[in-house]
Amino acid sequence: MSKNIVGVFGAGNISDSDDEWQAALIVGRELAHKGFIVLTGGLGGVMTAASKGAKEVGGTTIGILPGTRETSPANSFVDIAIYTGMGEARNAVNVKSCDAAIAIGGEYGTLSEIGLALKGKCPIILLNSWNIIPYGEAKQPEWHIASTPEEAVALAVGAAAEGR
Amino acid sequence: MSKNIVGVFGAGNISDSDDEWQAALIVGRELAHKGFIVLTGGLGGVMTAASKGAKEVGGTTIGILPGTRETSPANSFVDIAIYTGMGEARNAVNVKSCDAAIAIGGEYGTLSEIGLALKGKCPIILLNSWNIIPYGEAKQPEWHIASTPEEAVALAVGAAAEGR
Amino acid sequence: MSKNIVGVFGAGNISDSDDEWQAALIVGRELAHKGFIVLTGGLGGVMTAASKGAKEVGGTTIGILPGTRETSPANSFVDIAIYTGMGEARNAVNVKSCDAAIAIGGEYGTLSEIGLALKGKCPIILLNSWNIIPYGEAKQPEWHIASTPEEAVALAVGAAAEGR
Amino acid sequence: MSKNIVGVFGAGNISDSDDEWQAALIVGRELAHKGFIVLTGGLGGVMTAASKGAKEVGGTTIGILPGTRETSPANSFVDIAIYTGMGEARNAVNVKSCDAAIAIGGEYGTLSEIGLALKGKCPIILLNSWNIIPYGEAKQPEWHIASTPEEAVALAVGAAAEGR
Repeated sequence: MSKNIVGVFGAGNISDSDDEWQAALIVGRELAHKGFIVLTGGLGGVMTAASKGAKEVGGTTIGILPGTRETSPANSFVDIAIYTGMGEARNAVNVKSCDAAIAIGGEYGTLSEIGLALKGKCPIILLNSWNIIPYGEAKQPEWHIASTPEEAVALAVGAAAEGR
Repeated sequence: MSKNIVGVFGAGNISDSDDEWQAALIVGRELAHKGFIVLTGGLGGVMTAASKGAKEVGGTTIGILPGTRETSPANSFVDIAIYTGMGEARNAVNVKSCDAAIAIGGEYGTLSEIGLALKGKCPIILLNSWNIIPYGEAKQPEWHIASTPEEAVALAVGAAAEGR
Repeated sequence: MSKNIVGVFGAGNISDSDDEWQAALIVGRELAHKGFIVLTGGLGGVMTAASKGAKEVGGTTIGILPGTRETSPANSFVDIAIYTGMGEARNAVNVKSCDAAIAIGGEYGTLSEIGLALKGKCPIILLNSWNIIPYGEAKQPEWHIASTPEEAVALAVGAAAEGR
Repeated sequence: MSKNIVGVFGAGNISDSDDEWQAALIVGRELAHKGFIVLTGGLGGVMTAASKGAKEVGGTTIGILPGTRETSPANSFVDIAIYTGMGEARNAVNVKSCDAAIAIGGEYGTLSEIGLALKGKCPIILLNSWNIIPYGEAKQPEWHIASTPEEAVALAVGAAAEGR
């Protein structure tokens, strides 16, 4: 029986003095504490912080890497490194493998993951991330907005429990 | 020497009575008229309309399909059908192969293509599409907003001419 | 620090009365016993047998699935299911993520994985699998032939230890 | 109505003094002469020769590239360059988009394309390429062996005409 996985997406180019780092650290820690495997893109910034948080409490971490082990190795907090060699096309893999996902801050890659998650029916929680507004539509947004890391985790856990 | 390609992205589930259809038709026609190959996802809605427009003036069209010829064949206005069998991961291929791209309206798949285009340095023009606002940033948006199909084409052609 | 992974590739359409099943069961068990994570394509036949073998001795198993959880769920012996939705393009991911791989019997998909492993410098061990002969070349084959499941595991472990 | 495409696969590292070069040149020329679009991996060696042959007689050529335009641009005989950025995973795209394919000589990447073609029901013709022998099976091979470039083209054209 495969295990429950929650993705954490965000920019790779932030440092540990940025707000996103602290948020990702808490998110990773809380998800692992609640028994979820934490899946990231396996690189730096938010991906490292979330994985580090999960490992601090004995969790399991997966990294879905865009490159190969030779060109872009996983950060040192990744237990299971899946090297795709597919560049950004791997973003589609990230969202398909998660029961829910949390986007923290984020650059353009994160924006694409938000779109892919919504397309693929992966519940997505936005924490201080992109504000996305459909054109001329009154339709109900299918994404969730969180104000704190703890709220983001609670929303993700709730969505994951509902199943996909 | 490979030819210049402009992508047209948008929802597959609109019909020819929707505003996006007419916009995509004009965009496809204008791009082909100016000598560009029109690349789409090869399916319905905006993808069909843009390809149809291009063919009306004797242009060439490419479709990068998410499925296979058996499961999701290209629409009848696609000259060159590339079947990826990769699902949404093909969205990353779409943006990498274009000199510039135009997003018209759009659902979640289009949102992901906007993110992937920005990530991949493919100039992207938004025509009545998603309004995307980065979190807490004063940074200059790197995307272009067009008000009409003609303006979208002019912006795309200008961006393509600058090279990538 | 990411963990060592050995792939086991083979046909999905064999049953537990076929020779490959028993071979895959032993291979999975031995690899897990020696501390390796067992990676497969996550579906039936050889993939199920290898994962079952690994779980019998408390090992960890990964499945890299060609479809989605809705269309082609992982077999019940997969701990970590990575859904790519990419069809056979996922075969390239399989070989990039392994320290070594063992091909057992095999149909056409396995043949492609042998080629991709060789291309990607993933040491590959053939156990009662395809006999592949380069055209008109006296070159030294870079693959390994094993006669028994135990020998296949020994060769894979040796190759994995040498690093990639 | 999308056009008929025949793939030509082979090693990228051969030069114009190798036998494969001349064979690929003839194959590309003949395919284009008979009205087929020639699809290759877009890089050097066999891929360049087949594309060159097609262009000599006014044909159309497609290249499905493993990298990006920045990292691995298409050879100068490619009309339509599709950049996947997906590495070898693009081999699966190559075979899905062809009505038939011809493998000439070939290294490991070609071997993977032969496997993927067979898996994906793309008729595949081997011209001085890998000799592949299934283990312990008396089953009828589903691939075709050609002795000359002309015979390879005739077999590919026949298979493409039968449809997929």
